[in-house]
Amino acid sequence: MIKVAVLGVGTVGSGVVDILEKNADIIQARCGKKIVPIIGVVRDLSKKRDVSIPLTDDVKSVINRDDIDIYVELMGGVEQTYQVVKEILNRGKSVVTANKALLAYHRYDLQKAAKKSTIGFEASVAGGIPIIKALREGLSANHITAIKGILNGTCNYILTKMMNEKGSFKDILKEAQELGYAEADPAFDIGGLDAAHKLLILSSIAYGIDAKPEDILIEGIENIGHEDIYFAKEFEYSIKLLGIAKKQGKRVELRVHPSLIPQDKMIAKVDGVMNGISLIGDFVGETMYYGAGAGKNATASAVVADLVDIAREGQSPMLGFKSSLENSKLTVMPKDEVKTKYYFRVKVKDKIGVLAKIANIMERSQISIESFLQKMETKQLGTTTLFFATHHCKEANVQEALREIEKLEFVSAKPVMIRIED
Amino acid sequence: MIKVAVLGVGTVGSGVVDILEKNADIIQARCGKKIVPIIGVVRDLSKKRDVSIPLTDDVKSVINRDDIDIYVELMGGVEQTYQVVKEILNRGKSVVTANKALLAYHRYDLQKAAKKSTIGFEASVAGGIPIIKALREGLSANHITAIKGILNGTCNYILTKMMNEKGSFKDILKEAQELGYAEADPAFDIGGLDAAHKLLILSSIAYGIDAKPEDILIEGIENIGHEDIYFAKEFEYSIKLLGIAKKQGKRVELRVHPSLIPQDKMIAKVDGVMNGISLIGDFVGETMYYGAGAGKNATASAVVADLVDIAREGQSPMLGFKSSLENSKLTVMPKDEVKTKYYFRVKVKDKIGVLAKIANIMERSQISIESFLQKMETKQLGTTTLFFATHHCKEANVQEALREIEKLEFVSAKPVMIRIED
Repeated sequence: MIKVAVLGVGTVGSGVVDILEKNADIIQARCGKKIVPIIGVVRDLSKKRDVSIPLTDDVKSVINRDDIDIYVELMGGVEQTYQVVKEILNRGKSVVTANKALLAYHRYDLQKAAKKSTIGFEASVAGGIPIIKALREGLSANHITAIKGILNGTCNYILTKMMNEKGSFKDILKEAQELGYAEADPAFDIGGLDAAHKLLILSSIAYGIDAKPEDILIEGIENIGHEDIYFAKEFEYSIKLLGIAKKQGKRVELRVHPSLIPQDKMIAKVDGVMNGISLIGDFVGETMYYGAGAGKNATASAVVADLVDIAREGQSPMLGFKSSLENSKLTVMPKDEVKTKYYFRVKVKDKIGVLAKIANIMERSQISIESFLQKMETKQLGTTTLFFATHHCKEANVQEALREIEKLEFVSAKPVMIRIED
Repeated sequence: MIKVAVLGVGTVGSGVVDILEKNADIIQARCGKKIVPIIGVVRDLSKKRDVSIPLTDDVKSVINRDDIDIYVELMGGVEQTYQVVKEILNRGKSVVTANKALLAYHRYDLQKAAKKSTIGFEASVAGGIPIIKALREGLSANHITAIKGILNGTCNYILTKMMNEKGSFKDILKEAQELGYAEADPAFDIGGLDAAHKLLILSSIAYGIDAKPEDILIEGIENIGHEDIYFAKEFEYSIKLLGIAKKQGKRVELRVHPSLIPQDKMIAKVDGVMNGISLIGDFVGETMYYGAGAGKNATASAVVADLVDIAREGQSPMLGFKSSLENSKLTVMPKDEVKTKYYFRVKVKDKIGVLAKIANIMERSQISIESFLQKMETKQLGTTTLFFATHHCKEANVQEALREIEKLEFVSAKPVMIRIED
């Protein structure tokens, strides 16, 4: 059993407790150990929180407990938090943190302090996307030619809205604040500093560079106006706040700023609050990673993944499970029972009553038609192609209907079926 | 020093040797050890190969050597290769393989056999995309709701071409064969079996399911015709060969078949020979991974990443490097020296000579204009907005030009600059 203390039980902290409880079975099967949150630390004990673990406001006492294996740091802040984390590491305990500001300033200090234990920080960059792992382990064979990242969901939401709708920067920012996509004080996101923290973390892993936010070019999206959107559309660009790192010989460009990107690039297609990161390696070429960059569940998912890694002691089971899922062993669903939407293409002789006969077969097989299209052949007069898209129905019924339709005398070729994946 | 034997020195095998030689410096910095290929095994010694390591056709002798730490298996084949790999594992040595057919049939046997050592198989699914790691470690906190993967580059190339150009399945297949994107005997790719092998590997990690290709629904893309493309376009779908796994209670749908996907989904945007995989977790939501699914360098990149993981013994250095890059220490490029393309928006009073004055400033600052657009204001008569996009030029020059332009008496607002990222 791995005992966990959660320092800071806000949105993400309660998400961590939530996952550890709800997915306890599969987490234990994956790492061979129970991971249990046993105490939470909060600043204000009077505030109501939706977690079942005991809470305290005494950090010191929790740090000094011998029975805790891993500390999840979600307090935020830089200098004071650095002291707390260092103390935990000095006691030989591991830390999992989502604190990008802390890492932007103290990542090398922390690496030094973690001699006897581990620091997990997957949650600090791009929330639910396992980008630290992809870069540090997945692309370890490569010199990283470039990193281009949409690392801030607030900015991406605003820029996407500006591209897709009329609306000024100010109005959309206000809307984002109401939806909880932007902070009451949005300067940190809008101004590019949040993305810069994340870029610095990534550039350490790619290049071994110990840069601070002060060392790099950072511009925000405040000045983007509807005329820039007009130009972008005219020349088929998207506007994104990008964190960019590029290797040029023995130097690395590091910059965060709004960028015009050709609309056909994969990263240009990352819209709304989502994050996307393109990593380019000298051998692997371009790889791209997409997912939720923030939010309770996505961030907590990354925190818990780090806990699982530490519980596995670096030895992942080859196929992901240390033990089988006793109570929830899964089996393959028989092919016939699959339910999805379907598309049929049926080539028929163009006669009265053809459509009715096919529709009757589909009705008998409990297949409900969502859309229908008929296309006249230009080459063969008297032949026409019918296209059907169905609502969800059962594979067995579809196969049965296809066999019956094929037998109809006016059907001139074997019908084609393609499944629709919405 | 980690000594590696490469069993099978074809395209990927020579790629592995190539990376280990060319990127030896950064690989050593990342794992703290030299990883050196010392012997290659080939079937036909008379065939010329472009690698510098000694070659032999005697597998047995190489397996029995005590000085080899890791075996890279790139021979292909299933049953015979399974015996070879089992023997290596029984000797306590680690194996890295790209052999998806071997894993589709024997992954659980191999997991059992690897009691004292490690099997790396990142290269077996989606080549350069670190998808095994993302699923097994990155998303370990989640129940996997669904996997949807474009896992075969040959099929995706053909389907993309069919969508974008006129051309029959047969013609495009022939073209793909000439370009080296399809095998002389394409049945394995076109028929969906290759994608099925990969889906089975992923579904083991997601669900702990030991299914074989025979157990699941597999359909190829042979029957897709231009009329299906017509329908897809009409209803804003893309057609992709998808490997799909979906959890439904205690059962899992596993199927490989052509699918109609709404064009606005991220995975629908994965075109050409590229692979893309969407992993959906109950907490993290949708994450998507994109990259080259095959080819010498991308596949070799994944093989070498597995070698680095084994050399690290599961303990990745926090920030990715065990030692600093002595001879190639990188520094941050000063902001002023960045070179990229730029976009300017300048609001001016509409007078004769305005454009010439601005163009002169840009010329003096060595900024060459790539495109230009002028937009008349409807609200304020006599005011117009000029848009410029530049060729590559230096940040310092751009800043200088902007300062000068701002000073011009007919410029009515601070010019806006956005960098262009091609």
